[in-house]
Amino acid sequence: MSERFRAPRGFRDFPPELMILRRSVISRVISVFERYGFDPLDTPAVEYWETLAGKYGEEAESRLIWRFTDPWSGREYALRYDLTVPLARFIASRRDIPLPFKRYHVGPVWRHEEPQRGRYREFYQCDADIVGSPYPEADAEILNLTVDALRELGFTEFKVRVNDRRLLSGVFEEELRVGNPLPLYRVIDKLDKIGLEGVRRELLKLGLGDQLVERILSIIEHRGPVEHLESICLKYSTSQRVREACAHLEEVFNLLDKPEHVIFDMSLVRGLDYYTGPILEAVLDKPNIGSVAGGGRYDNLIGLFTGTDIPATGVSLGIERIIDAGLELGIFNMERKTVTEVQVVVLDWSLLKQAWRITRMMREAGLKTRIDLARSSEEAQRRKARRLNIPILAFIGRAEAETGTITVYNTVTGERTVVKLEEAVETVRKLLKLASPR
Amino acid sequence: MSERFRAPRGFRDFPPELMILRRSVISRVISVFERYGFDPLDTPAVEYWETLAGKYGEEAESRLIWRFTDPWSGREYALRYDLTVPLARFIASRRDIPLPFKRYHVGPVWRHEEPQRGRYREFYQCDADIVGSPYPEADAEILNLTVDALRELGFTEFKVRVNDRRLLSGVFEEELRVGNPLPLYRVIDKLDKIGLEGVRRELLKLGLGDQLVERILSIIEHRGPVEHLESICLKYSTSQRVREACAHLEEVFNLLDKPEHVIFDMSLVRGLDYYTGPILEAVLDKPNIGSVAGGGRYDNLIGLFTGTDIPATGVSLGIERIIDAGLELGIFNMERKTVTEVQVVVLDWSLLKQAWRITRMMREAGLKTRIDLARSSEEAQRRKARRLNIPILAFIGRAEAETGTITVYNTVTGERTVVKLEEAVETVRKLLKLASPR
Repeated sequence: MSERFRAPRGFRDFPPELMILRRSVISRVISVFERYGFDPLDTPAVEYWETLAGKYGEEAESRLIWRFTDPWSGREYALRYDLTVPLARFIASRRDIPLPFKRYHVGPVWRHEEPQRGRYREFYQCDADIVGSPYPEADAEILNLTVDALRELGFTEFKVRVNDRRLLSGVFEEELRVGNPLPLYRVIDKLDKIGLEGVRRELLKLGLGDQLVERILSIIEHRGPVEHLESICLKYSTSQRVREACAHLEEVFNLLDKPEHVIFDMSLVRGLDYYTGPILEAVLDKPNIGSVAGGGRYDNLIGLFTGTDIPATGVSLGIERIIDAGLELGIFNMERKTVTEVQVVVLDWSLLKQAWRITRMMREAGLKTRIDLARSSEEAQRRKARRLNIPILAFIGRAEAETGTITVYNTVTGERTVVKLEEAVETVRKLLKLASPR
Repeated sequence: MSERFRAPRGFRDFPPELMILRRSVISRVISVFERYGFDPLDTPAVEYWETLAGKYGEEAESRLIWRFTDPWSGREYALRYDLTVPLARFIASRRDIPLPFKRYHVGPVWRHEEPQRGRYREFYQCDADIVGSPYPEADAEILNLTVDALRELGFTEFKVRVNDRRLLSGVFEEELRVGNPLPLYRVIDKLDKIGLEGVRRELLKLGLGDQLVERILSIIEHRGPVEHLESICLKYSTSQRVREACAHLEEVFNLLDKPEHVIFDMSLVRGLDYYTGPILEAVLDKPNIGSVAGGGRYDNLIGLFTGTDIPATGVSLGIERIIDAGLELGIFNMERKTVTEVQVVVLDWSLLKQAWRITRMMREAGLKTRIDLARSSEEAQRRKARRLNIPILAFIGRAEAETGTITVYNTVTGERTVVKLEEAVETVRKLLKLASPR
């Protein structure tokens, strides 16, 4: 296939069978967001470069942000890298908004990744954030929402890993006095990929002493039920940051609706610079595709714009991985290839006007209806309807036109009925309840 | 307000009250698209520059397309300028798709316009297109769909103007032998803005002879009921292109569901290069804000990719102008500031856990429910709920906690009831039917 036919590398077209699934997944996620009282907010795809600069950390900003210069004005723009920094900019610009402000945002973000299986340059995020509450209730609501959204989609075997940035810095920087913690965090973050042995090897490679490495390993083994948090809290309680994180996380854990889905995990780090408190990441037991949601508290981000900090916390669901995983697990499918419920099949093209009127009648009744637009043969019309899995066919031919009827065919049961025009809509509605592949 | 707080010039943030309206408008438009059996398709925001080049005409391509070079690969990219050329590229890449293919696509497009009232650099289009039918039925379906979509949104006073590119070229280029028709078309296109006198003046300025100008004026006065088409057809029937257009348009007009909303208009030109047959543009009688939808047939566009032409026709609804107009006409409003239906008001924060359970119960029943996350006073909780227009308040205090009840308050009627917890959901549901501002 010639390049000029293709979406750019790392970008994708979504044909109907995939869009029908995506729309259904997104609308179920939104229904959960709205049940929690989150309101929709949209921000532009394009931001000034300076809006994004200094928020995400070195790697994202030097390599992953789609950044470009406007040839006319010479200004530097960027495609948004996530939905969080634009939210912070919005809040900074609208100091009249009553806090706490709860918003959701579903839309694409762009990252200049090297494309590979499951990693794209344009992908959707579904974000819910609470701005203006420093309290554990807000973090607990985000955690409960994350669990509910995944359950609403049909996932049952998953865990939300929780840690706190203050625990990381309190334990590793204050207590263990690791001078430059970033390389350490990067290694810890790989625990799930490379295992404890791999982490040991890489920590030693960083030049950390044997004893220190063993201590670090024993710390990051704290992952699982909430008792692991207690044990860390007891051990490092001389650190003010550890004490703050522990008090906060304990309150969060107390407000969980479904605690069986939440674990404390001292090895959770998360890459983005802007987190300041609790952080979270949702992982499915199967398939092994990395995290399907991530988020945390970022109490200083909005202050980078306004000079005054406003506390905030949120989560981002990665809809691409969620869909890939759901397909693999069989809880999603792409069997619906069209939204169409009824295909009007025209047996004699001199009857176009009658067929057109019947089509209009169906549509006015709210039935999703197609009529062939290519003057195809009956056989071709039926073949196309079959290929798209359209549940109901409505035939109009000479006999039907003369008697004011149509022949309704249920493709699932094979049943065929001749009905009066006035009864056509009701008949189709009844059959759809039985025949629809949904 | 400092620039670094702002969306880029010409770009907008959409706060909840506007998003709630936008989501409702878009979902009503999509419901009409789906009733006609159109299926969702998405293509990326970013395309290779070469995909867009040579499709829209000089002005768009030299000035209006957001075009940028990737500093890493040196490749030229562009943000999509409309949803039509990406559709053509998609079809070219997927020759296995059964035709006719009917898709809709709702999403933002980007144009490097000088921002002004009602003109943005990022705006949404709602497109429906039929690929693979050369027949008038397809154009008629697009016209009927356009009328239905506008009526579904509550517009009653509007017209869809229809012309045909073959009529324009047959009459002006073949019959009147205007050598370079583009400047002529550009002037004709301004008829609604500058009036007949203005057009006369500008045509004379182009250097056209008096007699020719008068003939052109008498031609473009053909606008209104279908008889105007007949008169043009009779007069210029020696042109093959005119004859083709006339036969085609007559069949289209024969299949209109609501002909009262459609007029023939010999002054309709439309700017984009890719149109080849019928063209259309919807205008509201009031307010005077230009067209709210536009489209037409583009039988050669897909062939620019594949070498083999595939006929296609479609329409694009301009959701921004539709919303501006609907607000001005009072058929839309922004009274809903939140999706939230119920605010749980906590009278005593030692009851947080009980209040949290009640909140969860409401949410599990599908009620859109908030609980204060800032440990605010009762007064502050009520004030915030009032500001957001939340219809139902559910109070939990000492008395309620002790008796297993909540106090439900209907903010519309001012009615207050104490109900048992088991009956709370049912009570709220009943009140919402009465109290909801929708």
